[in-house]
Amino acid sequence: MTVTPQMFIQGMRQLAAGVTLITAQHEDQRAGMTATAVCSLSADPPQLLACINRQAETYRIVQNSGAFAVNVLASHQHGLAEAFAGAVGIYGDRRFELADWSVLKSGSPVLSPCLATFDCRLVEAVPAATHSIFIGRVEAVALELDLQPLVYAGGDYGLIASLLDTAEG
Amino acid sequence: MTVTPQMFIQGMRQLAAGVTLITAQHEDQRAGMTATAVCSLSADPPQLLACINRQAETYRIVQNSGAFAVNVLASHQHGLAEAFAGAVGIYGDRRFELADWSVLKSGSPVLSPCLATFDCRLVEAVPAATHSIFIGRVEAVALELDLQPLVYAGGDYGLIASLLDTAEG
Repeated sequence: MTVTPQMFIQGMRQLAAGVTLITAQHEDQRAGMTATAVCSLSADPPQLLACINRQAETYRIVQNSGAFAVNVLASHQHGLAEAFAGAVGIYGDRRFELADWSVLKSGSPVLSPCLATFDCRLVEAVPAATHSIFIGRVEAVALELDLQPLVYAGGDYGLIASLLDTAEG
Repeated sequence: MTVTPQMFIQGMRQLAAGVTLITAQHEDQRAGMTATAVCSLSADPPQLLACINRQAETYRIVQNSGAFAVNVLASHQHGLAEAFAGAVGIYGDRRFELADWSVLKSGSPVLSPCLATFDCRLVEAVPAATHSIFIGRVEAVALELDLQPLVYAGGDYGLIASLLDTAEG
């Protein structure tokens, strides 16, 4: 039996993930999107990747700017995750008014505070069907060690509990 | 200031992730490794990616077999995660004796039960520094919807709690 997109999406709901905002700026245009398809690629040199739909506005801005930031959200920032996923009826640049932003090295908007920000220069974009894999060389890192991560699994946002906290595990 | 591998690794500890075992078999050789650098790539066609160190035995077996499975672990399977991460003093094929395995379409060992298994044919390997990005076309999916996901964040395994459960979020 062939795997349909629906079967694949249902399966992927089972893979928990941290929640990030991918942000970029080209000239006076900012774009951002909520993304869970982000992962570490290599530590030396420091590189990560993000899979982005080529229809996304953020895709276009990153292609133009050659840079992007990955902002790892804390559990109290689930409203931002929803806004940048287009789920609360606020679109475009107005979503940036929901939080505070700064800049590190690449010029991409950096959410402050958040769990971690990786400010990246785009080094390669690998096309794959509907998406491209953006490989980013990390040129600056900002950390807040006292926040709890926001996670997404089974179609819901959640937070992390210790394996010792509940017996159902 | 240049981002060192240590700074990058510390930052990446902040990005929570579901925990998977990537498994492969070539002739009578099985290999497997614990991996969190796995994400969805496209739904149509169904494709995912996994970042694998080119020194890993699993890398070599996948290159030879042209196939791999991504097995998404449940919270009670943290012992398997530790074993396949090389953290419990059991190595090589003996780690497979810790669980039950079956086969779907590609011939790769499939952990049963687990939250989700994506049985993949390798369609592209993109080299990037120390690692390669394995792009897999998903040819079969198996799901167990009643299990809780295992997550890894801040250097510890954990499970997911509702955002409503705790006030510290």
